[in-house]
Amino acid sequence: MTASPTPKTPISIYDTTLRDGSQGEGVSFSLQDKLNIAVRLAEIGIEFVEGGYPLSNEKDVAFFEQIRKFDMGKTKVCAFGMTRRRSMKAEDDPGMKALVAAQTPCCTLVGKTWDYHVTEVLRATLDENLDMIGESGAFLAKHSELIYDAEHFFDGYRANPEYAIKTLRAAAMGGAKWLVLCDTNGGSLPEQIAEITRAAREGLADFDVEFGIHCHNDSELAVANSLASVDAGATQVQGTINGIGERCGNVDLIAIIANLSLKKPDYEVLGGRSLTSLTELSRFVYETANLQWRNNQPFVGQSAFAHKGGMHVHAINKAASTYEHIDPALVGNERRILVSELSGRSNIEAIAGKHNLADDKELMNQILAEVVRLENQGYQFESATASFDLLIKRVSGKFKPHFETIKYRIVAGDRDVENNVAFAEAIIKLKVGDTMWFDAAEGHGPVNALDAGLRKALTGAYPQLSEISLIDYKVRVVDSASGTAASIRVNIESTDGKETWGTIGVSDNIIEASWKALVDSVEYKLHKEAAG
Amino acid sequence: MTASPTPKTPISIYDTTLRDGSQGEGVSFSLQDKLNIAVRLAEIGIEFVEGGYPLSNEKDVAFFEQIRKFDMGKTKVCAFGMTRRRSMKAEDDPGMKALVAAQTPCCTLVGKTWDYHVTEVLRATLDENLDMIGESGAFLAKHSELIYDAEHFFDGYRANPEYAIKTLRAAAMGGAKWLVLCDTNGGSLPEQIAEITRAAREGLADFDVEFGIHCHNDSELAVANSLASVDAGATQVQGTINGIGERCGNVDLIAIIANLSLKKPDYEVLGGRSLTSLTELSRFVYETANLQWRNNQPFVGQSAFAHKGGMHVHAINKAASTYEHIDPALVGNERRILVSELSGRSNIEAIAGKHNLADDKELMNQILAEVVRLENQGYQFESATASFDLLIKRVSGKFKPHFETIKYRIVAGDRDVENNVAFAEAIIKLKVGDTMWFDAAEGHGPVNALDAGLRKALTGAYPQLSEISLIDYKVRVVDSASGTAASIRVNIESTDGKETWGTIGVSDNIIEASWKALVDSVEYKLHKEAAG
Repeated sequence: MTASPTPKTPISIYDTTLRDGSQGEGVSFSLQDKLNIAVRLAEIGIEFVEGGYPLSNEKDVAFFEQIRKFDMGKTKVCAFGMTRRRSMKAEDDPGMKALVAAQTPCCTLVGKTWDYHVTEVLRATLDENLDMIGESGAFLAKHSELIYDAEHFFDGYRANPEYAIKTLRAAAMGGAKWLVLCDTNGGSLPEQIAEITRAAREGLADFDVEFGIHCHNDSELAVANSLASVDAGATQVQGTINGIGERCGNVDLIAIIANLSLKKPDYEVLGGRSLTSLTELSRFVYETANLQWRNNQPFVGQSAFAHKGGMHVHAINKAASTYEHIDPALVGNERRILVSELSGRSNIEAIAGKHNLADDKELMNQILAEVVRLENQGYQFESATASFDLLIKRVSGKFKPHFETIKYRIVAGDRDVENNVAFAEAIIKLKVGDTMWFDAAEGHGPVNALDAGLRKALTGAYPQLSEISLIDYKVRVVDSASGTAASIRVNIESTDGKETWGTIGVSDNIIEASWKALVDSVEYKLHKEAAG
Repeated sequence: MTASPTPKTPISIYDTTLRDGSQGEGVSFSLQDKLNIAVRLAEIGIEFVEGGYPLSNEKDVAFFEQIRKFDMGKTKVCAFGMTRRRSMKAEDDPGMKALVAAQTPCCTLVGKTWDYHVTEVLRATLDENLDMIGESGAFLAKHSELIYDAEHFFDGYRANPEYAIKTLRAAAMGGAKWLVLCDTNGGSLPEQIAEITRAAREGLADFDVEFGIHCHNDSELAVANSLASVDAGATQVQGTINGIGERCGNVDLIAIIANLSLKKPDYEVLGGRSLTSLTELSRFVYETANLQWRNNQPFVGQSAFAHKGGMHVHAINKAASTYEHIDPALVGNERRILVSELSGRSNIEAIAGKHNLADDKELMNQILAEVVRLENQGYQFESATASFDLLIKRVSGKFKPHFETIKYRIVAGDRDVENNVAFAEAIIKLKVGDTMWFDAAEGHGPVNALDAGLRKALTGAYPQLSEISLIDYKVRVVDSASGTAASIRVNIESTDGKETWGTIGVSDNIIEASWKALVDSVEYKLHKEAAG
């Protein structure tokens, strides 16, 4: 007879990307964005999705109306609101009414813990605040599952522990099923979080409630603080995807889910599901929020499993798992070997391997020298792998250009009043074999016109170029200290529906940098087909 | 008689931005960059500055030659290298020779802890590796202070604790003054770091050595892990400014210094100096590394003390300190009140206050409506405060344009072979009062030409515009999912030597977006002078 394993403690994940996350600088979601994100969160099995603050704006009201049409599986949508106003019955309070009108299976009520905030911000007495918490909770608990978020709990507890516990007891008496301790200012340390979580549980020992933790990252400790609270007995973690949120952000649920699932064998998250869609979810939220990816983000960043140092890359080829804290496939990410002047021969060889060139030492030296020369101009081949493929072909004499640029020119200027567009036109002259092609195209802006003109001029010779479309276009000022005269690095991501590829161009002129990246994109597609 | 306070334990800060940091994706430092950063690190009082790996490249050799000419105060420059090769005497090993040739007051030697890596990567026996550590250390300790970095210490200890301790003992017998435990793969949890740090100290109790900690952020726990090791007895923390480094980066020394100094009263860092230059140091390193600032970076990010939510801003005006975990001035940062559709009236009022408009409710409504309208087009006024100033003036009828745009046009194209420039020309027609001004300018790229042309055309009417220069130019594709036809947001930072200001322009055409931001920059300057 074998001993049965200790059962894992389930930890609920509560996502507030759509409410607290939208407080982040530069973040604003449309209604459709919010619906799309909510559905994705349900798909990966997140238990609670906070959709918004229905009292605060019409967009959130519309969200709660529309989300009811979607199948959210076991995921509970939550509406967020504050305790009732000081001198008003709960049933008359506009915030309470808005919460009930949202018709969600769950409501999240936030209330004040910190005595100073009660008297100075709310202008209420300490007892009035307890009534506001208890009565608001009792009113809402008749309609839905109730989560109570104790704002400033850790600061409030340090200031007046007795009163802080009283606020939690008022919420529990009101019918809250969950008491969530918020480190609203993000200033606490893990040992403080653990100690105060334990104190809160002791103070509520006579109630049948569960505890949650809500951390902000102001001390760069949000993940550690949340895990410390879980180890002290919390069974719900509130946060946002990618840690977006006000100031330094909320805790990143990506890191919470991955750490709890992959590193803490005592706990279970997302019902034990696979995490292979975490990377995709992270990037989907960045794209929807129009935020740049955080390349070095733990677990899901593009660089999270990228290896650059020559010594490491050499060893990784021998024993990958001992150079990576987890298998990147577990979270849907992948290993990348980067090209760089620091990387030395073993990196170049790892990439050149697929070209069957790795045994040619002389060629490897030439490639390395070319990489260094271009890096000094501002090139970075790390995400421009198609341009790097072409570089290897060029250096090894295997590059056969499919066309020759004779000239290109763009004209652009102010808004054409009649058509209400700021005009941009490109004129392109190319040579394919002995044939000259001359064409022109209009576009939204000069780069769009160049792209259209280049492919239009080549369509006669290479009709398959109509399959290409640009999916991303990035501009980086390489030396931003010297203003508009600085070097410009353009990265383009293209797709033909089957594959996506990245190319790069660098120049002191954005038009020329864009042209180089566009030409590489087209050449990559044509070489790919010639090889296939 | 009062009890004297417990003396604080000094914690040494060891910076490896110039070596481990330069392994980060997208990071490459020139020799001059490295010298500039090293001098800054010495200025703020960092004890150890690792300059590079002299065996690996010529740039690092040159760094050690040149840094000797600078006054580094009490800061010790360190050269980094690996243990000697397997079958070679330390004094004959090229790496050892390169370290001695660097003539630094301190050398950092890295060696293998993990038995698997010894046999599979080094292809040495376990005893050979101990000899390599001990003999390399003994050789170097004759020349300089010796720090021993135990690579993969935590993974190695978990695999074979006895052998891991033996490697540290070999280094201590070799004369290492510091034994630094490295979580090379970044996969450990704080409780593991604390426990293994204590085990290492116990295993070396008979040696007079100090311990250090070197963490990577792969689990988003690098700060917590480093602090846990300090609480377990480590007295040196290795990391990089802004946490730059391979994969997810090294631990961010900014957060380490701020947390130890401001939140952990038992410890002293940087000899107790003020931290008011931390924010400037962080930004200096980003600029030098040509990396984008991490806006939500704890302590020093632009958003770290930025308040957007209307409820918060209302309360912050009452009691700032209870909404911020530290006073931003302590780390040289500042509070910012953001303009946003979410922020509501109290944010707009806080900013409009300086215009003495806050009492005009009707006007406040109009400003808010205009902000929402423009935000829907892709504007963000958060860092474009000069454009927001002009917006308030426009809505309140106080904006008097200093000129009228009649037309602008740019022509740009391929490289002029004769002069080796990709040409760009701007033609500008403006009206000032009743006078028409028509001018043209060349530039490096279309935006540079537009900027030159605009100011050239206005110089006759407003000679003071010659004081302006652009210090930064940023392009953001607002909806990157649709390629080059997406909306383009241009942010420009301008200066007249006395003040710097940010302006913004949005359009589907980069030329038009740039024009709008340039026009706002010039109008802001002219309005400022008219008011002054």
